[in-house]
Amino acid sequence: MTIKKKKIGGQTVKLENPPKIISTYSIVGPKEGQGPLSSYFDQILNDDTCGKESFEKAESQMMFTAISETLKKAKLKEKDIDYLFSGDLLNQIISSTFAAREFSIPFFGLYGACSTMSESLSLASIIMDGGFADYVVAATSSHFSSAERQFRFPLEYGSQRAQTSQWTVTGSGALVLGHEGKYPQVTYVTTGKVKDFGQKDANNMGAAMAPAAVDTIVSHFKDTGRKPSDYDIIATGDLGKIGRELTDKLMDEYGYNIRQQHIDCGEIIFDNEKQNTKAGGSGCGCSAVVFTGYLYKKLMKKEIRKVLLVSTGALMSTTSSLQGETIPGIAHAVAIEMN
Amino acid sequence: MTIKKKKIGGQTVKLENPPKIISTYSIVGPKEGQGPLSSYFDQILNDDTCGKESFEKAESQMMFTAISETLKKAKLKEKDIDYLFSGDLLNQIISSTFAAREFSIPFFGLYGACSTMSESLSLASIIMDGGFADYVVAATSSHFSSAERQFRFPLEYGSQRAQTSQWTVTGSGALVLGHEGKYPQVTYVTTGKVKDFGQKDANNMGAAMAPAAVDTIVSHFKDTGRKPSDYDIIATGDLGKIGRELTDKLMDEYGYNIRQQHIDCGEIIFDNEKQNTKAGGSGCGCSAVVFTGYLYKKLMKKEIRKVLLVSTGALMSTTSSLQGETIPGIAHAVAIEMN
Repeated sequence: MTIKKKKIGGQTVKLENPPKIISTYSIVGPKEGQGPLSSYFDQILNDDTCGKESFEKAESQMMFTAISETLKKAKLKEKDIDYLFSGDLLNQIISSTFAAREFSIPFFGLYGACSTMSESLSLASIIMDGGFADYVVAATSSHFSSAERQFRFPLEYGSQRAQTSQWTVTGSGALVLGHEGKYPQVTYVTTGKVKDFGQKDANNMGAAMAPAAVDTIVSHFKDTGRKPSDYDIIATGDLGKIGRELTDKLMDEYGYNIRQQHIDCGEIIFDNEKQNTKAGGSGCGCSAVVFTGYLYKKLMKKEIRKVLLVSTGALMSTTSSLQGETIPGIAHAVAIEMN
Repeated sequence: MTIKKKKIGGQTVKLENPPKIISTYSIVGPKEGQGPLSSYFDQILNDDTCGKESFEKAESQMMFTAISETLKKAKLKEKDIDYLFSGDLLNQIISSTFAAREFSIPFFGLYGACSTMSESLSLASIIMDGGFADYVVAATSSHFSSAERQFRFPLEYGSQRAQTSQWTVTGSGALVLGHEGKYPQVTYVTTGKVKDFGQKDANNMGAAMAPAAVDTIVSHFKDTGRKPSDYDIIATGDLGKIGRELTDKLMDEYGYNIRQQHIDCGEIIFDNEKQNTKAGGSGCGCSAVVFTGYLYKKLMKKEIRKVLLVSTGALMSTTSSLQGETIPGIAHAVAIEMN
């Protein structure tokens, strides 16, 4: 066998032909559009139903828009795209599959809960690096109202929110990977393991996901020989304020102080005090729009050069919670660098 | 850019370092164990709860067993495995994530409905061929009782079944890909597009998935220049009797007569008359156990040499059906050959 090994450690591959993120598109709901990152999003909806008769259809429409618009920005047609990788939070990922129905693009459906943006970007990057594709689209979405009624309570119920709870982001992010041009490129992919530290509180997802984030970030440093200061920003998925603080503390125990570089997409997307979003934002769409909106634009302007995107997911369902199960978490890390 | 292109047509890649399926394991429920393929399965359960207190936990336990046992057969430890790809039918793929929690293996969660066996095998093969891994596990599962109560009615309801309905297979299949040895190898991967021909009847999944199967098989022939007689067996996922007949007719329209090679995993796993399984079996576990049990063993014995596995999925949820949506389908094809 003459296959050259690209795995450089237990969980990390180094991409030798780093794919480039040649375009992104971020679409968000009205509440996200009133938050601190407002000016970075490509589109802010006035109406979070997108004129559709259900929140689920609205979510799928957002993803359709994100994919369509990122293709336009890249000056590509759907026939140019080799693969579409996407997933979302809804049962049987209907936002993704009903969006994918509108495109004639070979489709891989994913489920990684809120880790899906870095999961789709990981697989899309690997398939590009391996020479299997010229252009690949990665996308994901979430919607506050479809998530609330699926995972928690119908909105009409008006239930009180816990201080540790997070607010599912209404939004979708999509991006196109290509081989050419001066764009941020994906250099390393560190794939997470499922971690379960026995957290059971579905209103405290940050705590459930923090151990997974820590495990993946530590593995990334060990595998690559990098250290926190090699990055301008380490952006975790949607740990929120509580999960972000917990992650920083746990990282200390492994000998890494990441406080200077660490931001959490869930913590920064809302003004949590003013917007009453408690511990912060969550949902697949959260790290998707923070990356495709905020971080990508800062990379393009060279305000930052090196980002480690670590989307985090809580892998429970209402059934597993009702059956007394704990909440396992997962986190995937992707290193993105602008030369 | 010096990346060698591996895409040989619109939807197909040719694997230049074809990964080998070095072991498989199939575990099925009691009813599947009474069917015509009984002697090919590695393990037949006497009790479809696996001694667990819920069907969901039983399904996850089956997948855990399938993964553990295929590792044992391959004489590998979990630390030898670079990636685990798996998915299932349950909301938020809890069978897969709770099984993955027990292994310290980087995990990619997938959702492709009943197409998941060929989806996981496709991505696992691509990642192997690209040199990103030494060993990868692909797995999937389904369970009659967890699927019935999630997608249709509680078992206690005792609802009558339509003649076109299918019986979700209780079973899990897992396999290990490696680079060395005399084993069946994956040579081509044809990735499906989401196809929707407006079928709305959730009791006739075969008809919903047939157009996707036809689209992928036709694309495979066009991309590779192959014809039906190049295969000993073309095994569709779980179209059942009705979907299989429809697929054969639709293939005629494209100028391909596949009747001689075509079997459907859903049609052959049960004796549909005697076992009252109507149009046949379905579920992710169906093509998983028919491949890892029946077809793999026939390949190893060289009774057959060339198989095109085309697992098919119906991409609806209870929510999408209640909201009046049609049922999109998808099918992924993987060519597996024994020298």
